[in-house]
Amino acid sequence: MRQRGMFISLEGIDACGKSTLIRRLKAVLDAEGEVICVREPGGTKVSEQIRDMLLDVRNHGLLPRAEALLYAAARAQLVDELLLPVLAEGKLVLADRYLDSTIAYQGQGRGLDEDYLDHINRICTGGLIPDLTLLLDVTPDIAAQRKRLQGEAADRLETEGMAFQTRVREAYLRLAQAQPQRIAVIDASQDEDAVLATALELIKARRGEK
Amino acid sequence: MRQRGMFISLEGIDACGKSTLIRRLKAVLDAEGEVICVREPGGTKVSEQIRDMLLDVRNHGLLPRAEALLYAAARAQLVDELLLPVLAEGKLVLADRYLDSTIAYQGQGRGLDEDYLDHINRICTGGLIPDLTLLLDVTPDIAAQRKRLQGEAADRLETEGMAFQTRVREAYLRLAQAQPQRIAVIDASQDEDAVLATALELIKARRGEK
Repeated sequence: MRQRGMFISLEGIDACGKSTLIRRLKAVLDAEGEVICVREPGGTKVSEQIRDMLLDVRNHGLLPRAEALLYAAARAQLVDELLLPVLAEGKLVLADRYLDSTIAYQGQGRGLDEDYLDHINRICTGGLIPDLTLLLDVTPDIAAQRKRLQGEAADRLETEGMAFQTRVREAYLRLAQAQPQRIAVIDASQDEDAVLATALELIKARRGEK
Repeated sequence: MRQRGMFISLEGIDACGKSTLIRRLKAVLDAEGEVICVREPGGTKVSEQIRDMLLDVRNHGLLPRAEALLYAAARAQLVDELLLPVLAEGKLVLADRYLDSTIAYQGQGRGLDEDYLDHINRICTGGLIPDLTLLLDVTPDIAAQRKRLQGEAADRLETEGMAFQTRVREAYLRLAQAQPQRIAVIDASQDEDAVLATALELIKARRGEK
């Protein structure tokens, strides 16, 4: 592949502020060149169909290993159909969740072991790893509080339970500690402007290194 | 898991006679204990849904790596929901296609490399390998001729082309050469009774070893 664009993934527990940050980053960075935003699972027609199917088959006894492989299929399609081509064109990609979500959610939520999930990640990404991952770190308490302030039901936060969200957060922090060169932790309890400023600084620094 | 049953997979190019042999094996072996027959992709409600989806999403640009992972998801569900439990109960399983089909078809048809497919196979089987694999070996010419005699359109044989079937057959024969302890080649140009007799002998011998 020719000169590559930049691939940034955003991670964190539910309601950590990813969507807001992605929207604001896109608004700023679009001035410098086209920014492609994707969410997982999804981002292509096939991946969105797999997303719909994931929701449907859960009702029919979908088991953890098969679930992880369905996510993996959606990601492989996203990588091959969309990410590799747009990165080859030099574009900037902002991904709402990518490989770290697999470890944090499937590992904590479904009890699959991390080695197994690492194998799946290697297979489905085909080796495409983000240049930079922004981990929006916030306690589940603050996340739930914000969601209530926005007038939204804190549905998944509450369904899955605060203990689960705490385990997911800890898994993310472990990943960041193990891969500090790729994963930057942002204190997402700050206000939106401060989070945006920190993210832009990190992106600028990583661009300088490329 | 407790005392295991026996897991037999049947492989071969399209129209090699697998379905007929499975039906006849079941009729004979059912007398000795329950025989479970499965086909891939499928065998569980979730896996059948993935099968339907595979047919549907191909129309929307499903790419080879994502396709292989969808097959893998269907197989993981089959293994965890059905195969492991019935084998733990000591039953005999006859599977119409399993891991060797991945190598023969995805490798030849989609151009994915064998190491990549081996990784996927390790992940989706979770280590469950057949005790015995019966490879029904027949030339694509004879397979197509039979299908016409049965009054069926030799649809897939002809759509995918005889050159493709020849490559799939060669891939199967290479697998059998590499793993002679697991894969037994049966000359499927023989008449049905002879094929059945050979298969029963092989199964009896393998049972004696267990």
